[in-house]
Amino acid sequence: MNKLYLTLMAFAMSAAASAQTWIWYPGDYEIWLGNKMNNRRTERGAFFPPFWKTDTHYPVVEFSTKIDLAADEEVEIASEGKFNIKLDGKLQFGMPSKFRLPAGKHSLNIKVWNQNTPPAIFVSGKTVKSGSDWKVTYEDKEWIDESGKASDTSATVYMPAGCWNFNSAEEKPSEFSLSRKPMDAVQKKSAKDGMLFDFGKETFGYLTLKNVEGNGTVSIYYGESPEEALDTEHCETLDKISYTASEITDLAVNDATARKPEYTLGNSKAFRYVYVVADNGMKVGDVGMDYEFSKVDYRGSFKCSDDELNNIWNVGAYTMHLTTREFFIDGIKRDRWVWSGDAVQSYLMNYYLFFDSETVKRTTWQLRGKDPVTSHINTIMDYTFYWFVGIYDYYMYTGDKEFVKQIYPRMQSLMEYVMGRTNKNGMVEGMTGDWVFVDWADGYLDKKGELSFEQVLFCRSLQTMALCADLAGEKADAEKFSKLAVSLKAKLMPAFWNEEKKALVHNRVNGSQSYAVTRYSNMFSVFFDYFTDEQKQQIKKSVLLNNNILGITTPYMRFYELEALCQLGEHDNVMKEMKNYWGGMLKEGATSFWEKYNPTEKGTQHLEMYGRPYGKSLCHAWGASPIYLLGKYYLGVRPTKPGYEEYVVEPHLGGLKWIEGDVPTPNGCIHVYMDKKVVKVKSGEGKGTIIVKTKNGKKIVSVPAGEEVSVKL
Amino acid sequence: MNKLYLTLMAFAMSAAASAQTWIWYPGDYEIWLGNKMNNRRTERGAFFPPFWKTDTHYPVVEFSTKIDLAADEEVEIASEGKFNIKLDGKLQFGMPSKFRLPAGKHSLNIKVWNQNTPPAIFVSGKTVKSGSDWKVTYEDKEWIDESGKASDTSATVYMPAGCWNFNSAEEKPSEFSLSRKPMDAVQKKSAKDGMLFDFGKETFGYLTLKNVEGNGTVSIYYGESPEEALDTEHCETLDKISYTASEITDLAVNDATARKPEYTLGNSKAFRYVYVVADNGMKVGDVGMDYEFSKVDYRGSFKCSDDELNNIWNVGAYTMHLTTREFFIDGIKRDRWVWSGDAVQSYLMNYYLFFDSETVKRTTWQLRGKDPVTSHINTIMDYTFYWFVGIYDYYMYTGDKEFVKQIYPRMQSLMEYVMGRTNKNGMVEGMTGDWVFVDWADGYLDKKGELSFEQVLFCRSLQTMALCADLAGEKADAEKFSKLAVSLKAKLMPAFWNEEKKALVHNRVNGSQSYAVTRYSNMFSVFFDYFTDEQKQQIKKSVLLNNNILGITTPYMRFYELEALCQLGEHDNVMKEMKNYWGGMLKEGATSFWEKYNPTEKGTQHLEMYGRPYGKSLCHAWGASPIYLLGKYYLGVRPTKPGYEEYVVEPHLGGLKWIEGDVPTPNGCIHVYMDKKVVKVKSGEGKGTIIVKTKNGKKIVSVPAGEEVSVKL
Repeated sequence: MNKLYLTLMAFAMSAAASAQTWIWYPGDYEIWLGNKMNNRRTERGAFFPPFWKTDTHYPVVEFSTKIDLAADEEVEIASEGKFNIKLDGKLQFGMPSKFRLPAGKHSLNIKVWNQNTPPAIFVSGKTVKSGSDWKVTYEDKEWIDESGKASDTSATVYMPAGCWNFNSAEEKPSEFSLSRKPMDAVQKKSAKDGMLFDFGKETFGYLTLKNVEGNGTVSIYYGESPEEALDTEHCETLDKISYTASEITDLAVNDATARKPEYTLGNSKAFRYVYVVADNGMKVGDVGMDYEFSKVDYRGSFKCSDDELNNIWNVGAYTMHLTTREFFIDGIKRDRWVWSGDAVQSYLMNYYLFFDSETVKRTTWQLRGKDPVTSHINTIMDYTFYWFVGIYDYYMYTGDKEFVKQIYPRMQSLMEYVMGRTNKNGMVEGMTGDWVFVDWADGYLDKKGELSFEQVLFCRSLQTMALCADLAGEKADAEKFSKLAVSLKAKLMPAFWNEEKKALVHNRVNGSQSYAVTRYSNMFSVFFDYFTDEQKQQIKKSVLLNNNILGITTPYMRFYELEALCQLGEHDNVMKEMKNYWGGMLKEGATSFWEKYNPTEKGTQHLEMYGRPYGKSLCHAWGASPIYLLGKYYLGVRPTKPGYEEYVVEPHLGGLKWIEGDVPTPNGCIHVYMDKKVVKVKSGEGKGTIIVKTKNGKKIVSVPAGEEVSVKL
Repeated sequence: MNKLYLTLMAFAMSAAASAQTWIWYPGDYEIWLGNKMNNRRTERGAFFPPFWKTDTHYPVVEFSTKIDLAADEEVEIASEGKFNIKLDGKLQFGMPSKFRLPAGKHSLNIKVWNQNTPPAIFVSGKTVKSGSDWKVTYEDKEWIDESGKASDTSATVYMPAGCWNFNSAEEKPSEFSLSRKPMDAVQKKSAKDGMLFDFGKETFGYLTLKNVEGNGTVSIYYGESPEEALDTEHCETLDKISYTASEITDLAVNDATARKPEYTLGNSKAFRYVYVVADNGMKVGDVGMDYEFSKVDYRGSFKCSDDELNNIWNVGAYTMHLTTREFFIDGIKRDRWVWSGDAVQSYLMNYYLFFDSETVKRTTWQLRGKDPVTSHINTIMDYTFYWFVGIYDYYMYTGDKEFVKQIYPRMQSLMEYVMGRTNKNGMVEGMTGDWVFVDWADGYLDKKGELSFEQVLFCRSLQTMALCADLAGEKADAEKFSKLAVSLKAKLMPAFWNEEKKALVHNRVNGSQSYAVTRYSNMFSVFFDYFTDEQKQQIKKSVLLNNNILGITTPYMRFYELEALCQLGEHDNVMKEMKNYWGGMLKEGATSFWEKYNPTEKGTQHLEMYGRPYGKSLCHAWGASPIYLLGKYYLGVRPTKPGYEEYVVEPHLGGLKWIEGDVPTPNGCIHVYMDKKVVKVKSGEGKGTIIVKTKNGKKIVSVPAGEEVSVKL
């Protein structure tokens, strides 16, 4: 690994001094914050942490930089943790908040210990400022040699420091929380033994009980539907608050505070409806809430001639906003964990909505955790592969090489884990402890042997390794993974293509192809470009538009199915399908999109999942895929070189009269307008190419940065 | 690894229900407590954490047990961390301090999250009690399958829970601290600009400033010698306390409290002398201290006809007591860290003094830390090997198989790290980042190529792996490591034995033996029994008693040198040497034994080390080796089967008139008396064998448990 770290060091040295900001060991803050996030889940008042290994920050790290000062300079030092200062290798007294650096060339090291929160520092002087150009290590491997001299060793692993946006001494990273805003219920009415409050739409935050009279217990039952809130035996989340003359106690966590007229609960919940029941003799004056949200900008936009579709886009954007928290989570009611398969879709939607790179990076660090790798990400084999794919996508959309370099060592160790679990064909099969998920399917999905779906994802992961190894300057790795990817790709068709069925079969057990064909590997092979053009057209007929193949009922896999169809030119059909499927949810009263939707179900059937009457999440990130589809396949914008250095606009009306919108890029956005007569594109950055069908055939037109280009159709 | 865990589970199931006690993930509390210990080091007022990777506890773990109750039972639950309760897989509301378990067979799981201190629980009912018979895991890998049912998987790694002696709900593990007792200085006098206090002997604890008048700064300079305390520019440790009218602030940590007449410092220091200097206009009334110590019992004893030797034993015991803290540390003044090479000797001395197994186990966990292994233990190659050797010794003295089983997975991963760094000969050489230490030597020690010393330690480590794999039920590992050990052992003599020099040479570089002979590998090969009897006698002459071979000046290696000489029957010479060397320190006024002693040095030369005038530690665990030598080679007691199931008493007067003492065993002690006429032995447990030379030749006599046996000489 030494070669890599030398590269990283070179990077750290050459990076321009960044603005002063709090810094930490890359990934450590993200993993620690992720623990707070993942441990807020409750199930009917029971605390519910994840069932995979929880990692945490390095308790001791050392930050360092080289300085070269024209004159003495006093720096302000803030720290999260006990720290020491070493100037040119010499320890300085105490933990001063101000320290004078002498003129000239010096090395400055600050070592921090913090058991509870990630060790972090903020250094601020006239020229010396902590930033991502500082180095950091968790084992400085410095020792005193026989001559009594302290000496560094080249084996010490230095990384460029991690940071976010905590740019003043007072903004301590460990004290970060999302934003809040008070909201009121829009309706309240008596129901059963208490009151039912309706906040008008799916929301998320901290309930406030107001003016409670009397002593006893107030029970709060949350619902994404009125049925759920009123079903005190089966609603997924609830709270119980005890009032005495002097104290208010949250019974779920035994947390007591002095009694006061307004009491806001300590843990957040997702709900639209709240059913509040108080003990006899008590009265609850009113309830309110603190809506909690991430301060991301709506940089993407979409409007068109169809109001239902506009509504779909808006509800999709709101769904994405609700599930974009400290991290991209799956659903806000039940799981509230970070899941890799869900996250990789949130990333893609994010590129067409917020383009918030920080949340992508945080989520990627959080999911990966620390070494050693002892299981797949979220214990799910497919989710390990999505993690790699997510980094590929991130690089394509943002062009951020520095992140790839920082995360590459963890890519290496995760891929080592995967490679250690391949069979004699170099393919992955579910082993003890692996969850082979694929999808929640209404029919039986065989998980035995070599699944074509898993090999396709594995192949893409190997390609990602090759790409990122190259970016990280790991030439030997790049070559190795490139070869492995080529080798696995070459095996896919012989192993799974069935000429009779004109499709990849679902799996191969003990070397024998099964008879089953499912959509998963076929649709991924379309947009991973693993098929020939001929095969793609065959697949469209034999699988994607074939009603005899087991249908997809989750928006999760519908995301990929519709993407594949768009890639095969089925924009009009996909548009109809979007209106049917997401329009169908809206007609059912959805104010955010669901974990699963089956148009043939009725009434409260829509609320069931996992064998529980309200098990289904009615606000699930993977439900928001029109955000992505409309941006990428109707506005038609996608990067063709990393970070939108070059991009393509290939817009499609999909049967609409006109569409218009913005697709965000790293430092700006691409504006697209299309009606039946014209396409107009303007972007502040990047080299664009419009590809459209006109009356006179296919037309390819360049879009220079800053100029609006119109193409007549 | 599955096989192992099945074995461990079987153990957990079969173990007798232990007394109710706080439980945690094995090693986690020890590693966390170790961080507190290792991060208390300061150097001239600067915080000074270790320079190797600091690990920490798993933030989320799940405890579980199976219960079978004749009747309902209410249990009290105390927890360090947020927790949930699952009864037969069903989550229960909240975090109750009391919970009713129903009659019948049930599974009980308690999952705890704690970021700051190790997740731990205490469960106490009539029959259900938390103890080491509970299981614990850091990744339960439970998931919901397609049918909506939660299901466990056999891949989950369960370990028997870790515990110590926190046996009531109130005794929270995270609140543990060593014992304290107030002590006064025995002398005070004016010196230079302040007052010099003498506490009469080396001591350790928290200084108290009494009745300080005026405002300003009080500077405290600590010394193990008066010279050090009075040398404000060079003393190794110091404190600065600021007084205002209302506040007292520890300037090293910026910690302020309200002003009061007596102020005890927050961080402990080692000292005999304290030089206190106050700003002009201030007056310090007096100082005192809180002596801090580990509550271990002096179960071993030694008395003899020679008062100097009795004094050596007593000062050795006190040195051991001062360095036996939460862990066995090296020296109390400067390092205050846990070092493997020092610890392995402390373990051996401990077996002849306190026989405190808990401190041995804690130290072993702490040193090892967590996976992944990224460097040698304490970054030192030899120290990795001592860690293995320490487990071998621990098992021999205590017979504690359960600990071996718990630690075995970490032995595996550390040995994997070592194996990954062997050369084409299967030998270890210093690689980038490795510190090849051996000893602080006054002459030059070549560290290049294959050192015979490192291979000897490596070989013993492989033997330890083979032994422990067998105990852990890992048959394949046992065979593998056994073969590796045999193979390496067979290479030692061809590689390093020099027939001309009648000794192992120091090292081999590029296949060529060097000319240098040093004592290290030769003496270890004596007591590891790697030599033939003929070679051993040759070594005695060619190396051990040969003044042309570079001499040893550290009590660290003197420990092993004298042990080797005892094994070669040189008891009379070793006795003289003990009196010379340790008696020499006493004549220099030592009240505890030193890190290094060179009899040819004079006055303050004795205080120097590492190029610093007071760099040397005057209270260093490795200085206490007579405790071990007198117990093992003069009282002559050693186990021959694990845990003193069988043992040998082979006493030697070493030129003294009589010796008498106790050697502790797991549950009792072996009393030995010897004079020129008789040997008397009595032990409460184990099958003893006395081996003595009498007028009529060698005599072998059995000692049944509980009987006193006398042998006339």
